[in-house]
Formats: sequence, C-alpha cells, structure tokens
Amino acid sequence: MQPTRLSILGVGLLGGSIGLAVKAARIPCRVVGYGHRKETLDRALEIGAIDESATSSKAAVKGADLIILCTPVGLFEQLLAEIAGEIPDRAIVTDVGSTKRSVVKLGEQLVPKSAHFIGSHPMAGSEKRGVEFARADLFQGARCILTPTQRSPNEIVAHVEWFWQKLGMTTTRMSPAEHDRLVCDISHLPHAVAAALISMQPDAALPLAGKGFLDTTRIAGGDGTLWRDILSDNADNLADSIKRFRGQLDEVLKLLAPDKRDELAKWLNQSAARRAKLLAEKLRELDT
Amino acid sequence: MQPTRLSILGVGLLGGSIGLAVKAARIPCRVVGYGHRKETLDRALEIGAIDESATSSKAAVKGADLIILCTPVGLFEQLLAEIAGEIPDRAIVTDVGSTKRSVVKLGEQLVPKSAHFIGSHPMAGSEKRGVEFARADLFQGARCILTPTQRSPNEIVAHVEWFWQKLGMTTTRMSPAEHDRLVCDISHLPHAVAAALISMQPDAALPLAGKGFLDTTRIAGGDGTLWRDILSDNADNLADSIKRFRGQLDEVLKLLAPDKRDELAKWLNQSAARRAKLLAEKLRELDT
Repeated sequence: MQPTRLSILGVGLLGGSIGLAVKAARIPCRVVGYGHRKETLDRALEIGAIDESATSSKAAVKGADLIILCTPVGLFEQLLAEIAGEIPDRAIVTDVGSTKRSVVKLGEQLVPKSAHFIGSHPMAGSEKRGVEFARADLFQGARCILTPTQRSPNEIVAHVEWFWQKLGMTTTRMSPAEHDRLVCDISHLPHAVAAALISMQPDAALPLAGKGFLDTTRIAGGDGTLWRDILSDNADNLADSIKRFRGQLDEVLKLLAPDKRDELAKWLNQSAARRAKLLAEKLRELDT
Repeated sequence: MQPTRLSILGVGLLGGSIGLAVKAARIPCRVVGYGHRKETLDRALEIGAIDESATSSKAAVKGADLIILCTPVGLFEQLLAEIAGEIPDRAIVTDVGSTKRSVVKLGEQLVPKSAHFIGSHPMAGSEKRGVEFARADLFQGARCILTPTQRSPNEIVAHVEWFWQKLGMTTTRMSPAEHDRLVCDISHLPHAVAAALISMQPDAALPLAGKGFLDTTRIAGGDGTLWRDILSDNADNLADSIKRFRGQLDEVLKLLAPDKRDELAKWLNQSAARRAKLLAEKLRELDT
C-alpha cells in the first residue's frame, strides 16, 4: 500500500512539508524532489525534506509509484505534459492544488491510462512561501479533500487517502465540482474579501489598525500571482459567492435601521455562536 | 500629573487590564473598582486589578481624580447620570468606548463644568470578555485615540495622554467625527464583514474551514450585544463603509473576466504589499 519511491514536483512550502512529514511518519520510501531552482533543491536536501534531487521533471518521476504535483496550479498543465510519457505503469499521480475541476480534467487527460490521477487538496498552508517555511507538522489535524471521479478505482483512492492520513490529515471525498463550490465559499471568497478590506482602506485609517484587522486580513498576505491562478480558475463559483456575500451585506445594511436593533444583536450573536461551534469542532479534531 | 485615586467603572477585560497595567507601571495610585456583579469585583480584588471595590457607582467616584468608564458603551448614559452629582471638582472623566461622537456628546453634557470629560479609545482588546481575561500587558504597543473638543483644555488632554502612554500605548488625537469615520473602516466594517462571512456559509462548507477562515472571522466571535451597540451607534458611517466595500467587491467581479488576469494579479499583489507594509510598521511600533 505504501509508496516506495515518492516524487515531489515543486519543493516549496507544501512539497517540502510533505517530504518532512513522510520522514516524521516513518514511511520507508525514497523521496525525490524536482524544482526549477537549484538552491531550493539544495535547501530541501539539507533539511532532509528530500533524499535526492532531480534536474528535470522527467527524471524526477522515473521509477516513482507516487507522484505529487506541488507547484502552483498554473504550472500543472506544462508539468503534466512534460512527465506524461515517463509516468511508470500503475503509478498514482495526485496534487495539492486549491481548485479541482480543471486540475482533475487535465490529470485525467494527460496521465496515461496505465497509471492513475486522483485529485487531492490538503487544506493546510500558510501565507508564507518556500521550502524554508516547510514543517513536518504542517498537515497535522488538517483536512484533505480527495476528488475521485468515475474513472478512479476505489482501491487507488484508498491508497491516496492512506498516504494523507499518515501525514496527520482527515480525508473527505467529494466531486471536483462540489469541492470547487464549497472551497470557494470557505476559502476563495474570504481571500477576495480580505484583499478588498485592505484595498478599500483610506491611508489615514491604516495606522489605527489593531490585531483584529491584521488577523482578518492575514490570508490576503499570500502571493498574488498564485492566488490569481486559483481565483481565475474558480471564477464562476467566486462570482456566485461574491454575489451571495453582497446580498448578506445588504441584509446588514437593513439591520442598521434604528427599529432593527434587536435583530442586529440576534444576527451578530448567531454569527458568533456559529463560529464558536466551528472552533470547538476544529479544536476537537486537532485533539484526536 | 498622575492620579492619586483612580475609579474604574466596569471591571471587565478592559477595566481589569487597566488596573493590572497601572500596578505594573508602578503608578502609585489607589484603584477603586465598581461593577454590578459582586463575584467580578471579588475576582478583580483577588488578582490585584483593584485595591478596593465599591457597591455603587456613586461611591466609586468619591474622591477620585481620574474616572474611567469601562462598561459597554450602551450603559454610559445611565452611568454618567448616576455619577454626575458626585464627580469631584477638577476630576477627569474618560472612557474606553469604541465610538466617540455620541459618547463625547454625553460626557460633555453630563459631566459638570467643574470637572472634565475627554473621550478615549484604547484600541486593544480581544473577542473574550470578563476580568478573568484581564492582562497587565493588554495595552502594550497598542494605539489610543483621544478625541478632545473645543471644550477640552490642552493640559487636561495631556494628562490623559500621559496616563495611557504609561500603560504602554501610543496616543493620537483626532475629532470625535474623524475617529468614528476612520475606526469604522478599520474596525467596525471588518467586524460586520467577518460576521457576514460566517453567516453566508452553507452548512456543508464549514467542516472544510481551515486556520485561514478562523483567523479571518476571529473578531466576529465577540459578544453580539456589545457589538450591536457599537455598530448601531456608528450606523451612518457603517452604512457608508459597507457601500464603499460593496463597490470594491464589484471591482473584483470585473477582475474575474478572462482578459483581466494581469490586473487581478496586480490588485492581489498590491493588497498583499499594503498589508505587509502595515504589518512591518506595527511590528516596529511594538519593538519601540
């Protein structure tokens, strides 16, 4: 069930953390890393995130039984086209991309029938980038969504689940479309909202920012080009989420009327209670 | 310049932290606390946030030269009416309220001419409530806005500034109207936005929430009734902020068009850079 040779394509925060987490979980497999910058690969070797580095993506997947795409989503097409002819028979290819419809479509098109593509989205990360921020415990307590299709044999999906669970995550299965819709609401919309909150501030307000504002906008500190790829790829869902969110703001405007004071308090208390329940559930997940 | 008898009306997170911070700053003054629950006052005595407790607000301000209103803003009118006849001559009354136009108006109306009212807004706090969360270092590195008017003698404002600075804060002066406008953008709008982000989520999306979503919505975990008072009191500014924010979201919708990919990346990068600059400034403030 477990891989003997793991190929990590793109050794940044996520790729590097996968390598470190594999070592920490004592999965006895050889880890080979590929990236376009030699310094990054050297650093990954140095911290023990990978056992060997490859100078091309083709070389990196040679003999691998598990291949994980860890570059930004925008590079997946090129990467899959490069490695397509070199993917060993029966190898499993998966990824860590934040969108799944386009990625799974590409994966199922470009990975040969002799191998398998299963989409994954480990929901862990940081607004920071680069292997220097990689951590063996990055995935502990996080959730990983797998997006199998009719073309995904159940035992292959189970292999991938086993792998992510070994790294400390809880796994969930859903369709690529459901993934993109739900993750849009809980992750892509908040990113756009946080960026909009920063961008609409008058210069005079910024010096008054406290810890609250910094927390609210933390996710918008992430790399803009990487997030552009995610938001563009999920543009139809994001447009829908923004419109529903705008509708919610219109409700808030109504609740600001002097005769709606009780309803405003009720709505604020309901949001606070919903978040408190969510936080309690997340803390329980981390505990177990 | 320093107070000899400080009266804290409302010994919760902020009132309790003021008491603890006064002790930590070794300001040699007697601290008397008033609150409507005996257990809270006993706890405040126990942790050393206050030196004595008073059973009525009137008794609490007797002989005080500095009086700080630390209850929720919604209770200020009643509290000021109660103590108005008991405020010693030349005493300074200030507050920790998150809105300033209505509070300063009340303060200047109800505090007798023989004393002074100066509005303050120490921008520190937490989504947690109660004296059990009080901390001597709550104000360290935070900003405190003072909102003097034409009726505020400069030396009295300077006294209040000295006090907050002793507790570790940087002070800024602005008019009550400017305060309410700027704080609306940087604090009240983010609160409403965070609450709306929670409230618009479909049930199925919540289990997929990660650390990012929890951080983005942290401020909306605060007490709904307390925040209702703040948002209602600043409803005109908040309506304006929400409308400008909605306009920003409309811009984002436009940037989702396939031919606007470069502009979307540019906008996301600008937001990220603006936040990075703000964070660097805040960290520098904390350092000094």
